[in-house]
Amino acid sequence: MSLLENLQWRYATKKYDPARKVAQKDVDKIVEAARLAPTSSGLQQFRVIVITNQELKNKIVPIAWGQEIVAECSHLLVFAAWDRYTEEQIDQIYNLTTDERGLPRGRFGSYTDKLKAMYLPQTAEQNFVHTARQAYIGFGLAIAQAAEQKVDCTPMEGFSTDDLDELLNLKSKGLKSVTMLPLGYREKSDWLAPMKKVRNPKEEFVLEY
Amino acid sequence: MSLLENLQWRYATKKYDPARKVAQKDVDKIVEAARLAPTSSGLQQFRVIVITNQELKNKIVPIAWGQEIVAECSHLLVFAAWDRYTEEQIDQIYNLTTDERGLPRGRFGSYTDKLKAMYLPQTAEQNFVHTARQAYIGFGLAIAQAAEQKVDCTPMEGFSTDDLDELLNLKSKGLKSVTMLPLGYREKSDWLAPMKKVRNPKEEFVLEY
Repeated sequence: MSLLENLQWRYATKKYDPARKVAQKDVDKIVEAARLAPTSSGLQQFRVIVITNQELKNKIVPIAWGQEIVAECSHLLVFAAWDRYTEEQIDQIYNLTTDERGLPRGRFGSYTDKLKAMYLPQTAEQNFVHTARQAYIGFGLAIAQAAEQKVDCTPMEGFSTDDLDELLNLKSKGLKSVTMLPLGYREKSDWLAPMKKVRNPKEEFVLEY
Repeated sequence: MSLLENLQWRYATKKYDPARKVAQKDVDKIVEAARLAPTSSGLQQFRVIVITNQELKNKIVPIAWGQEIVAECSHLLVFAAWDRYTEEQIDQIYNLTTDERGLPRGRFGSYTDKLKAMYLPQTAEQNFVHTARQAYIGFGLAIAQAAEQKVDCTPMEGFSTDDLDELLNLKSKGLKSVTMLPLGYREKSDWLAPMKKVRNPKEEFVLEY
């Protein structure tokens, strides 16, 4: 099926069959789509956390405003972005890039200097506005890949990011949570499943210049 | 080709063949992927602007730090998000949703009241942090769809959003620009085309709990 057909097929699942688990090979592909996502200056400012531990998922229910789907889903993905830019992070990915391409380290030095001059003087809050945006690119691609695998998912922002960061000990990793994506298979009784997908029509959505 | 194969195929094109234009049917599909993107509470907080006017594209070069690709590309897409939440915008999409689903207007009234109570007291700046994030979901899906059509593109944040907003008169539409996506076909001489795509390995990118 094409991407457009997959996007028509998917919907924000509201009720999962707790008995059905997503196969590891499907989870791997969903995470891989996020890993391949383009990001600003190729820095990959986000990570994906894959949660299968049932006790941990249960603890996230109250953090997610009581939404049971985070416990009932098969796998819970958390997208988390760098809580601030550091010189080390910028150098790490550019050193990896030059090493992988057989180029001398520092080949992109004038470019990474520019990035450091732009981001390092900003506040952590300003940095995070930018890093969090990058996570949404991978988030969108993971949603698309789930649909290609015919795995249901639920894009979620409705949770306390501070509480989740603390529970998952993300601060020690230089990360802050951004979004969650439960994965699984829809219950037949899900009220939203039969509802028509609604979007603004193209005439409203697209402006031509 | 699968989404993962398409993501491996694509790269941030640095040089376009100015003679090759992207067919309208391909542009339509790319925009359609963005239109179908999931967004927070289904509000579709962003729009896509399709620019083909050569004079206008030329005017954007200095706004985009002198990057000639915005003039040399076939079509220039601009992703722009709501500059703030309004009661009218929230009601518009929920009225459309109930109308399309044959439900009485106001059926989701308690939910839209919650959204209004959350977003309307925030500053425009706080609102835009959130609306801009949604644009990145559609941005990611448009990039994936371009790859499916074997159309090259360049995800871009490097431009003065204030200057572009003024040139495109976006304030009058309640929008602020977020990203740009030139579309076209790569020049064979593009230095980046033969370079290996580099991403952090899965062990670095994924955290398991």
